[in-house]
Amino acid sequence: MPDHPFSSLGAVEELLASLPEPDASMAAQARWHQAQLTKPPGSLGRLEELAEWLAAVQARHPPRLERVGIFVFAGNHGVVERGVSAYPAEVTAQMVANFERGGAAINQLAHTFGAELRVIPVEGLRPTADFTVAPAMSEAELLRALETGYEALSPGFDLVAVGEMGIGNTTAAAALAAALMGGPAERFVGPGTGLDAEGVRRKAEVVARALALHGETRSRPLELLRRVGGFELAAMAGFLLAAANRRVPVLLDGYVATAAAAVLHAVRPTALRHVRAAHRSAEPAHRLLLEHLALAPLLDLGMRLGEASGAAVAIGLVRAAIACHNGMATFESAGVSRSRGEEESDGEQGGGGKWA
Amino acid sequence: MPDHPFSSLGAVEELLASLPEPDASMAAQARWHQAQLTKPPGSLGRLEELAEWLAAVQARHPPRLERVGIFVFAGNHGVVERGVSAYPAEVTAQMVANFERGGAAINQLAHTFGAELRVIPVEGLRPTADFTVAPAMSEAELLRALETGYEALSPGFDLVAVGEMGIGNTTAAAALAAALMGGPAERFVGPGTGLDAEGVRRKAEVVARALALHGETRSRPLELLRRVGGFELAAMAGFLLAAANRRVPVLLDGYVATAAAAVLHAVRPTALRHVRAAHRSAEPAHRLLLEHLALAPLLDLGMRLGEASGAAVAIGLVRAAIACHNGMATFESAGVSRSRGEEESDGEQGGGGKWA
Repeated sequence: MPDHPFSSLGAVEELLASLPEPDASMAAQARWHQAQLTKPPGSLGRLEELAEWLAAVQARHPPRLERVGIFVFAGNHGVVERGVSAYPAEVTAQMVANFERGGAAINQLAHTFGAELRVIPVEGLRPTADFTVAPAMSEAELLRALETGYEALSPGFDLVAVGEMGIGNTTAAAALAAALMGGPAERFVGPGTGLDAEGVRRKAEVVARALALHGETRSRPLELLRRVGGFELAAMAGFLLAAANRRVPVLLDGYVATAAAAVLHAVRPTALRHVRAAHRSAEPAHRLLLEHLALAPLLDLGMRLGEASGAAVAIGLVRAAIACHNGMATFESAGVSRSRGEEESDGEQGGGGKWA
Repeated sequence: MPDHPFSSLGAVEELLASLPEPDASMAAQARWHQAQLTKPPGSLGRLEELAEWLAAVQARHPPRLERVGIFVFAGNHGVVERGVSAYPAEVTAQMVANFERGGAAINQLAHTFGAELRVIPVEGLRPTADFTVAPAMSEAELLRALETGYEALSPGFDLVAVGEMGIGNTTAAAALAAALMGGPAERFVGPGTGLDAEGVRRKAEVVARALALHGETRSRPLELLRRVGGFELAAMAGFLLAAANRRVPVLLDGYVATAAAAVLHAVRPTALRHVRAAHRSAEPAHRLLLEHLALAPLLDLGMRLGEASGAAVAIGLVRAAIACHNGMATFESAGVSRSRGEEESDGEQGGGGKWA
């Protein structure tokens, strides 16, 4: 790991190259333990995968799930002046105030799933430059936003959920996704943004203009992030780096958070091994982006709020997974008979089934 | 409602005809309230639908979510002698003991989601008759099992999850589903049951034999339940009746619980309006059965344990839905600006979008 990872884009790339790997031996230990528990092998489905993932990323078995954090990064976007959002820019600050007073969806969800909520308004919520005419950020601004995200992760969390609040930021996400994946702007701009048909057309045009101006930087993903990203997107990328570096598993929220993650993936395809996609949002291009990153979403509830709300709901799944993994009796301790297949193969078979 | 709903199959049908409807005015009130909350309209997706459903079934607004129960009905099956399960029949009793000691998956899940767990071994776990040679139950036995389920629902629950434990019961579920939906036995018998190919073939043959012997009763669904069902399936059907009658919303677990529900649906297509499918299990025919009942599952996590485990995980979703619905600030109280579309239409638009 470089001494000053946020002194230059090259240093950030160096940090990305030096991230620790998930611990395969801990995943194996989790898998072995799971085979002893009083259930048909594999019958908890993705809950079993989550327990193995937590053990591997944390490099410990049993995995621990005491402190859970939800981190919401907020930022404003110069491109809002182009009429790309159904909401005025001041809603970003109004919602940050609502988060602080406890009135937003994410406050209720944090309480429901026993998580601490941290809200980080990046760069005092001043907007980026309008990326249809200039890069959204200077290099110094990008590095500072990355560092803000990196430093936001205080020690002691066993799992974190990450998301955002920022009027205009699905336009930035669409520009990033379109540049990284290729394809026409329209494909990355959804109808489900509260805009009418005319608004969607305008938004796609804005993304197309951003691609014309900045698209050639797609082979340098951090430079692309500087040009068409935003403060909260950069901060989420920095936060993901910190989590990888400190072995903290991450639940990723929707389209905008996934676009930020995609930048790291473009630099280093193994950069997201500590990440699970919490949900598939109703923003249509989110599906494309998740497929591009080979992230299988845990939930598909038609949510499209942002605020880390989808990631927060998925905390419940991880709590369920770890409660089962760490709390269940074994066949031996409970005196439960194994299946014929398991008796023959000493419980190591993967086939499994239901109690039936 | 008949005086003695379990005195005859006709009386049960009468009960089914007299169930209360969900309260449309409470659903409308929930919908109106939802439009005032600080989020783009519709952006919580299925969580909003869950809040409206709870209000409608409970006939109250705001909906209440204090006491949540998980009910697991256990039963044994004569057909197990035909080699249809990878597990020996004694596992049913061993797992009931494991539930009572707190060692099973469902115990951990109940704790995670703050629910009370009730385990009901039906008919002392004595097996039904082997339905390849005789009806599984006598009429008196069926009525008693229905009543056991009906009586299991004690007052005071705001939401219940229902599931089962019973070695051999996916064979009964397959026979019910095949008879009610039509189609070859193989379609309703999954490979994912811990059986090898030979075992699956044998199980499909058993189901085909049951259909040949009892299939002509498909137009009398309660008689079909008597012939190819099981004690815990009948008890789940009785439990669903009690919940409908007392306005308690139900989260339905996997294939076997859904097969029990399908019997009520076959008698009365509106009988499941108080029910949501918690998840789609990995048992392939569960998808067919859910489509047949027009139930859209909330979760799809590859789970296939039974024990009400999928329904238990979905409790977290309902908790999230009600926490948001009952706890969020309104646009007015929080001083957050509405979208242009909402200002024009006074917040009643359905379009919506993300904060972006």
